[in-house]
Amino acid sequence: MALPAPLHGVIPPVCTPLDPRGEIDTASLTRLVNHLVDGGVHGLFALGSTSEVAYLTDAQRGTALEAVIKAADGRVPVLAGVIDTTTPRVLDHARTAAALGADALVATAPFYTRTHPREIAAHFRHLRTAVDLPLFAYDIPVAVHSKLSPSLVRELAEDGTLAGLKDSSGDEGSLRRLLTALGGRTARHSGPAPGFSVLTGSELTVDAALLAGADGVVPGIGNVDPAAYVRLYDAARSGDWERAAAEQERLVTLFSLVDVGPESEMGRSSSALGAFKAALHHLGVIDRSATAFPQRPLSDDAVAEVGRRLTAAGLLKPGGAAAL
Amino acid sequence: MALPAPLHGVIPPVCTPLDPRGEIDTASLTRLVNHLVDGGVHGLFALGSTSEVAYLTDAQRGTALEAVIKAADGRVPVLAGVIDTTTPRVLDHARTAAALGADALVATAPFYTRTHPREIAAHFRHLRTAVDLPLFAYDIPVAVHSKLSPSLVRELAEDGTLAGLKDSSGDEGSLRRLLTALGGRTARHSGPAPGFSVLTGSELTVDAALLAGADGVVPGIGNVDPAAYVRLYDAARSGDWERAAAEQERLVTLFSLVDVGPESEMGRSSSALGAFKAALHHLGVIDRSATAFPQRPLSDDAVAEVGRRLTAAGLLKPGGAAAL
Amino acid sequence: MALPAPLHGVIPPVCTPLDPRGEIDTASLTRLVNHLVDGGVHGLFALGSTSEVAYLTDAQRGTALEAVIKAADGRVPVLAGVIDTTTPRVLDHARTAAALGADALVATAPFYTRTHPREIAAHFRHLRTAVDLPLFAYDIPVAVHSKLSPSLVRELAEDGTLAGLKDSSGDEGSLRRLLTALGGRTARHSGPAPGFSVLTGSELTVDAALLAGADGVVPGIGNVDPAAYVRLYDAARSGDWERAAAEQERLVTLFSLVDVGPESEMGRSSSALGAFKAALHHLGVIDRSATAFPQRPLSDDAVAEVGRRLTAAGLLKPGGAAAL
Amino acid sequence: MALPAPLHGVIPPVCTPLDPRGEIDTASLTRLVNHLVDGGVHGLFALGSTSEVAYLTDAQRGTALEAVIKAADGRVPVLAGVIDTTTPRVLDHARTAAALGADALVATAPFYTRTHPREIAAHFRHLRTAVDLPLFAYDIPVAVHSKLSPSLVRELAEDGTLAGLKDSSGDEGSLRRLLTALGGRTARHSGPAPGFSVLTGSELTVDAALLAGADGVVPGIGNVDPAAYVRLYDAARSGDWERAAAEQERLVTLFSLVDVGPESEMGRSSSALGAFKAALHHLGVIDRSATAFPQRPLSDDAVAEVGRRLTAAGLLKPGGAAAL
Repeated sequence: MALPAPLHGVIPPVCTPLDPRGEIDTASLTRLVNHLVDGGVHGLFALGSTSEVAYLTDAQRGTALEAVIKAADGRVPVLAGVIDTTTPRVLDHARTAAALGADALVATAPFYTRTHPREIAAHFRHLRTAVDLPLFAYDIPVAVHSKLSPSLVRELAEDGTLAGLKDSSGDEGSLRRLLTALGGRTARHSGPAPGFSVLTGSELTVDAALLAGADGVVPGIGNVDPAAYVRLYDAARSGDWERAAAEQERLVTLFSLVDVGPESEMGRSSSALGAFKAALHHLGVIDRSATAFPQRPLSDDAVAEVGRRLTAAGLLKPGGAAAL
Repeated sequence: MALPAPLHGVIPPVCTPLDPRGEIDTASLTRLVNHLVDGGVHGLFALGSTSEVAYLTDAQRGTALEAVIKAADGRVPVLAGVIDTTTPRVLDHARTAAALGADALVATAPFYTRTHPREIAAHFRHLRTAVDLPLFAYDIPVAVHSKLSPSLVRELAEDGTLAGLKDSSGDEGSLRRLLTALGGRTARHSGPAPGFSVLTGSELTVDAALLAGADGVVPGIGNVDPAAYVRLYDAARSGDWERAAAEQERLVTLFSLVDVGPESEMGRSSSALGAFKAALHHLGVIDRSATAFPQRPLSDDAVAEVGRRLTAAGLLKPGGAAAL
Repeated sequence: MALPAPLHGVIPPVCTPLDPRGEIDTASLTRLVNHLVDGGVHGLFALGSTSEVAYLTDAQRGTALEAVIKAADGRVPVLAGVIDTTTPRVLDHARTAAALGADALVATAPFYTRTHPREIAAHFRHLRTAVDLPLFAYDIPVAVHSKLSPSLVRELAEDGTLAGLKDSSGDEGSLRRLLTALGGRTARHSGPAPGFSVLTGSELTVDAALLAGADGVVPGIGNVDPAAYVRLYDAARSGDWERAAAEQERLVTLFSLVDVGPESEMGRSSSALGAFKAALHHLGVIDRSATAFPQRPLSDDAVAEVGRRLTAAGLLKPGGAAAL
Repeated sequence: MALPAPLHGVIPPVCTPLDPRGEIDTASLTRLVNHLVDGGVHGLFALGSTSEVAYLTDAQRGTALEAVIKAADGRVPVLAGVIDTTTPRVLDHARTAAALGADALVATAPFYTRTHPREIAAHFRHLRTAVDLPLFAYDIPVAVHSKLSPSLVRELAEDGTLAGLKDSSGDEGSLRRLLTALGGRTARHSGPAPGFSVLTGSELTVDAALLAGADGVVPGIGNVDPAAYVRLYDAARSGDWERAAAEQERLVTLFSLVDVGPESEMGRSSSALGAFKAALHHLGVIDRSATAFPQRPLSDDAVAEVGRRLTAAGLLKPGGAAAL
């Protein structure tokens, strides 16, 4: 399907449920896509960091992307992460994603290697030329250990290389500078890059990003409560910033479930992904909460704590059934 | 003077003008304080990073703080930075600041050394006990290379050690988690730390911080245009978030003057501080734009560019006179 | 072929020559392998960072590894890098490498994701169990942004998971602590992990590593002058440390050719890899000096400077022919 | 006293014993100086990181330096650390050190601020001009968060700004490049900076540094066992590298006492400094093992473990008396 220009709204990074053998559980994944689309989201981001893309083999990536596209069934666009170390390897993923029917690609800067900004620019330009799909830059320094500068993004937005940015840098000052340079809150979509979409991955400050002129959000915890991010987005679009902030504040509280895994025993990433999946399991959306190897699983106590927090958030009834 | 609880509003970190010998230019500093107070600010932060505190000898620190307090003359409270490597050295500065009449102290975590969170907690507790002034924690990882965790700040807020936080971490997600944990937008000042003040140093996202429940801002470029931050603050307080965002956007554009110094020739910090001082010199507030040794000065071209940007921002008349 | 236990000596990371289409130039690669084996090296490390593994597609990785194994023809063992983000993806590479006849595997800690030490240990243990080849840990924080602690390596050495370590951490103090804990210079190979091999990737301090008890070296610039590293190794083995240090010093001087690409125009990695390949082209070993996309090529001036430094090192005759 | 050119040998960073009030225990400090000079050291470095300089007030710094100079009594030269954020503050310390009779100054790059290499060069040049004492650069990125590049050090060595370098960067490859560029093992002291002294702070690889041409070492654990470092140095000077390596290996084992404090409860720095002081207390050199506030003290168990390790190293008799 044609991507709206600019792409906007709530586009969650779709978790990847696994079966007991560690393979993609496509039935659970289909239910998750329905859970998200029913929640009102405006798009889906498959094969992102929250999808555990770094833990999936090429075959598993194909299976997962195919399942998301099939389940979405044209109701919302599907963006496909094409995450790998450098251009030639990313291209292989991009061609597969295009063949499977993805509506857009999402690529990071090169990683593992150290790369110059001019090399990063060439990377994105080559991807855009080689595969005929809208291309989003995924700025995620915590994973790739370099930051896309506002000036580089602006250059690639204005020359048409990029259809958008997914900003997971956590650097809200840089994001504000970029938004302002691109025309600001009122003139951005009549400015030098009118269809360019800015999506924040900073799921705890979405009200702020929207107030600054961002077009949407890619929230990991949107897997758990997509409707709340849609309410937040709608409140912002209608100019009801107090309401948007109140929704955000509720989601900040809910987000604390990522801390249930003790830092001394597991990575923060394992804890967060495990908590998202445990929540989806509590809600009856997916069959198992397992994360991919070698991530450590949450303890039974931690899983139970996730349930208590869902109850506190009104997402689970005290007896344990989904409140939705 | 007694500090409001919570301290709120616009509290700029006051630049420190220097004379041709590199000593404090107290006449210029006095004019700068008047420029800020006339702009409507709610407090002054002397001897912060923007004050070039790291470049001032103990004698110069004393001279600068004394001049700010004298010029403020009780119209607004004066917070004094007590920036040094560890507790015993910070205490020396704190006692001097108290003797000179500062209304509150602002201290970072220890730096140069590597310190455990429990050691950082002991550091703040000892400072609070040893000197009878409200104490603000200054979270500035770019300078001290550690981050104060939201849980640590919360603990020190709730037990009364800290009167507030100046958050220059740039980590808006953590800030949001802290604000939410302390009661959120509506309940924070009736919560577990009712008088605790949260001030953001992220001067490009002040509208967002205020929307999230922060109490105020410590903006470096507030030296140049204090009235604009006061307008932003007032718009936010009245719930006019669109107006607040528009003011913020204008300040983001103005802020770009920090980039006039080329990165290949000087540190980013020298460029930013040089640009603030060049702007204040253009505006007729201070006599010279020199920064402290060993920072490199802006070139004449860069200084002229600062002038052009002030004109574009409506702060200078085309002929060069201050527009205010 | 069976790997010596411990593996020792000079094991260069083999550069990957490319043809005009960017594909593997197997004829050049065969000549490079012969150049290295003729230089007296004790093993070959294919598909390492210096091999530009991060820039090669899966198909290209297979082609390159196959060519190296075929050219080595059992004269020296071939270690295969299996570089990817996490265990499931690394396993795919490991199975391919085993099928192609690699003699050992070299794997890093997971990257892109953030991983806990217990997760890293599980990663190596699972690789060792799933593919029946000796496994080396590749400690390269500059690429994967985590460091393998001496205690973790020791644990995995003592339980037989690891056959060795390739230490590219640059942390010589940690390496010394590991070597000492494993029994030290005299007792290491009769200690708790007798066949465990410690190879340093710190090519500028190989004399020091051998003096401390390391078994060998994986030197990038060993592509250019393998015989010199063999002389260094032999001097060390014979206890002639002055001679070893003199050889090392000559190689430090030669190594400076990695700086010919200006830092303002290209990544340090592109400059180093470009210089190694330009040197191999000057020496007549490979047909082209091109590096993989999106790395920027060295300028003609930089390539000429590489030639001058080879001449100064006695590797090229003034007229340009290889002096060997 | 005039400093040898180049300064060479073992120059320990002198620990600073504290009394029950946290003030300098000059009697213990005097005994420590005698312990070091009796051990055969070639110089003393007062007010360095290991001296807890970051925790000492200006008054305490003066007291400690005066005591070290008085106790050294001209038997060996005393280098004084002048550790502070930037040039103007460092100058205050430098003038005090000169007045107290220090034989040389040791200064880091600026910290807390971010500084450009040209600003760092100006910093050292100004210090050298303003105070007439030999000046050593102290390269300690773990504390100041910038690295002195080999090219910058070389420039300041060749123009006479610096009398030497104390390299605590842990970057042995850079150190080797510097030593080679300055003339190498045989020609360095007849090269472009003949009297320039290179001292390593990497106390676990001193044999390697001396083999590479370094002039000496500044070892923290040299407080505990100075004679062993002197034996290591003498072995190296006589070309007995096997003996040097054996001495180094014994010191690596002894060094592990820095790990007695659990990482979950205290900073690594507190653990290391506490262990050095606990060892000196066990040896009867100083009266108390207390470290400066806000560092956490070692537990009784950890202190006992230090004693056991001293016994294992042959420094304490089983009954607890010093074995020396």
